[in-house]
Amino acid sequence: MLQFPLLLDQSDGPLYQRLYRALVQQIRCGTLSAGTRLPGKRTLSSELGISVNTVDTAYQMLAAEGYVESRPRSGFVVLPFIQEFPTTRTSSVPDAAPQPAPEKNWKFDLRTGSVDADLFPFRTWGRIQKELLYSSPQLLTYGAPQGDENLRAALAHYLAAYRGVQCVPDQIVVGAGLEYLLGLLAPLLSGVCAVEDPGYSSTRHILENSGLPCCAVPVDKYGLSAQALEQSGANLCYITPSHQFPTGVTMSAPRRAALLAWAAQKPDRYLLEDDFDAEFRFDQKPLPSLQGMAGADGAVVYLSTVSRSLAPSIRLAYMVLPQKLLPRWKSRYGNYANTVSRFEQQTFCRFIKDGYFTRHLARTRNTCKHRRDALVSALQTAFGKNTIQLNGIHTGLHLLLTLPNGPDEKTMVCTAAAAGVRLAGLASYYHTTPAQCPAHTVVLGYGSLSESAAPALAALLKEAWSQPSVSSLNS
Amino acid sequence: MLQFPLLLDQSDGPLYQRLYRALVQQIRCGTLSAGTRLPGKRTLSSELGISVNTVDTAYQMLAAEGYVESRPRSGFVVLPFIQEFPTTRTSSVPDAAPQPAPEKNWKFDLRTGSVDADLFPFRTWGRIQKELLYSSPQLLTYGAPQGDENLRAALAHYLAAYRGVQCVPDQIVVGAGLEYLLGLLAPLLSGVCAVEDPGYSSTRHILENSGLPCCAVPVDKYGLSAQALEQSGANLCYITPSHQFPTGVTMSAPRRAALLAWAAQKPDRYLLEDDFDAEFRFDQKPLPSLQGMAGADGAVVYLSTVSRSLAPSIRLAYMVLPQKLLPRWKSRYGNYANTVSRFEQQTFCRFIKDGYFTRHLARTRNTCKHRRDALVSALQTAFGKNTIQLNGIHTGLHLLLTLPNGPDEKTMVCTAAAAGVRLAGLASYYHTTPAQCPAHTVVLGYGSLSESAAPALAALLKEAWSQPSVSSLNS
Repeated sequence: MLQFPLLLDQSDGPLYQRLYRALVQQIRCGTLSAGTRLPGKRTLSSELGISVNTVDTAYQMLAAEGYVESRPRSGFVVLPFIQEFPTTRTSSVPDAAPQPAPEKNWKFDLRTGSVDADLFPFRTWGRIQKELLYSSPQLLTYGAPQGDENLRAALAHYLAAYRGVQCVPDQIVVGAGLEYLLGLLAPLLSGVCAVEDPGYSSTRHILENSGLPCCAVPVDKYGLSAQALEQSGANLCYITPSHQFPTGVTMSAPRRAALLAWAAQKPDRYLLEDDFDAEFRFDQKPLPSLQGMAGADGAVVYLSTVSRSLAPSIRLAYMVLPQKLLPRWKSRYGNYANTVSRFEQQTFCRFIKDGYFTRHLARTRNTCKHRRDALVSALQTAFGKNTIQLNGIHTGLHLLLTLPNGPDEKTMVCTAAAAGVRLAGLASYYHTTPAQCPAHTVVLGYGSLSESAAPALAALLKEAWSQPSVSSLNS
Repeated sequence: MLQFPLLLDQSDGPLYQRLYRALVQQIRCGTLSAGTRLPGKRTLSSELGISVNTVDTAYQMLAAEGYVESRPRSGFVVLPFIQEFPTTRTSSVPDAAPQPAPEKNWKFDLRTGSVDADLFPFRTWGRIQKELLYSSPQLLTYGAPQGDENLRAALAHYLAAYRGVQCVPDQIVVGAGLEYLLGLLAPLLSGVCAVEDPGYSSTRHILENSGLPCCAVPVDKYGLSAQALEQSGANLCYITPSHQFPTGVTMSAPRRAALLAWAAQKPDRYLLEDDFDAEFRFDQKPLPSLQGMAGADGAVVYLSTVSRSLAPSIRLAYMVLPQKLLPRWKSRYGNYANTVSRFEQQTFCRFIKDGYFTRHLARTRNTCKHRRDALVSALQTAFGKNTIQLNGIHTGLHLLLTLPNGPDEKTMVCTAAAAGVRLAGLASYYHTTPAQCPAHTVVLGYGSLSESAAPALAALLKEAWSQPSVSSLNS
């Protein structure tokens, strides 16, 4: 329960922020454990001698950041604080506190969005950037709304060669992140959008924010099925066919064909294909994109980003629109300024055209394959081959670990956290059907896990998950 | 009228693009003059032996880019091709054509968004960028959703010192351009938004695209009046009080006070203050921002950008939210990834903190003041002091030129273009009341016009506007 005296820090920020920070601290250090009800707003306001509005603002901030949730007739209830991790694709760092509580010092960070700075091509990127800055003053002006022409031409060429995407540069839109592009795309479409369950909660959030109601459709071991999609009544479908997030399933060819047939049945049907980490396929030749199977005027919008292939902080994503959506796009956004710095657009363009991108991908893919091999091998050694199940291991940069006879998922996450390992449970990615979630399963992102560290990680997890009782962690 | 044979180029792009390019070329070279009706879609489709859809797509593209407009019962009508210039704040380069018709070779480009590459601090910017790239691998990861904490702290400090803005860093949101920020802001508000008439058509377009209906309220010589605003029934108001775009009016202090009083009357009223070029005030001390007059929890959203102060291609804008909008912001966008590259955020942060930004602004302001002086003096010399009126000259980087006894505005624009001077007429910025537009008036952006070139420009304009008849230009 809430510990008094509630110590507000002495900063000169607004009172609601200081209250917010004090509450965050109690949640993070476990004083306020999961399931605890926060005091009523009026109660706390009179106890602290501050206004109800101030308390309400602090509570709303906690709710917005997932520390608490508002429940009917219970008021605000504290959520397990590990819950802040799942949306690692966007930011996982709460930004509200000017002086945030210190981050826990993790031994291993296995969130799925983690990147390894050692793999970033600093030297080449820096050299191109510098050359462009001094040689290209014309890059100071506004560029083309959809992105610089030569970058789109380079992307069209790259996507055709490596992902089988069929398009002309005019179909490509470059923008500051996938979320931004989804936000622009949504108003061009109408109806209901199916999202994968489990899947990215942030994608659903963005689509709904942008006016497209969503419904969740379950993913099985072949991916999302056209039959389930048909039954859902949706006319749009957001999917990650190359490497379903988070289950790691690669959608089977018959399923792909069935989805394309579904999309072709009615003119307002579209598939939104998020191909975010297809570059990291280790063991088989990657399947071509759905977009490529559908063709340049098929009903597929292809989306991808450099967040995984280069770095999340370089805000550059791209989308390939079907030709029939282009007039709608141009009429709505034809005079919007592009959102990506032209210096970064041109740096990336040169990086692709001079062959650095494919070389960088090959090198990174190779490194990540070794990391995957090392992790799989270390886990099998530590737990025993028949004790654990590993899924979604053929494409990068995360896999699923199931421990059929181990503790429940929540305990797995909490004990791992106690041992210094940051990871997420699979259930936290389910929108509406957590009951269908395979039990005892966690998601391990290994994008930034070195080969040599894998045995130590596996040993830590083995020890954490072998303890008889750990349910006292949050009490 | 349309000239046959309509020569489609031999590129391998889609047919609609080749048709689009052929039509653009005829419009640009004047074969298709303003006012001409395009052939009906069915007519053209059967004449060319192509599908009606292809013709329609090409026509829609032309309409989206402002080459033609669709009129009831007339079909598509060609607009004066000079009309593509006004929205220079965003891009003025049509992006649809993979091989666009060559741009006219302008002797002088007086569009308002033009920048002078010579003023950009290449050396300092490049050095900081390089240092950060090699020293800060942590910048590869996702940053905070509202923007990096230290950048927001630096902005809060800068805005307080130079624009009288009152805020804490937590109220600041950094994003990839003003348009992007407006698009996020609009769904947090509701009701009807008044926009200035004349004003930015792109702002209105974005607000309406984002679900906020707009109405236009006239600007007089003191700015927009609270009385007119009250009568409009709007509860939101987008304004450029420091330097109204395009009239150049600085809103008077009583008008400011009246607007703030208007906003304070009802809880759903907000002023959206766009302070885009307030850094360029030459002759008097700048008035503090409306936001500063209203206070940190007043009903003002403050918006600004580095498009004028650094370069439009560096996609970095910022907005200061009233505290009461913060919970709504965080609940809707709390887990959106920020859209600005962290390397650029940090480069700009260091640029501010190390004092380069204020020095750069002082230097640029000084240069632009000399340019303004040179332009004003050259125009007065060429035309005679009593023959022309110059307005909006105290704040940068554009002014209005009226030639009371000169040709009409459209002729002024066309003859200037024929003489190699690219500029826009004032009427093109009017949303709904072009009848109220002062006659014979054009907008001259001098951000990239060197002092030494001013006399030659003035002489060119004098000659162009002294010719007896020029109405044959478009025929």
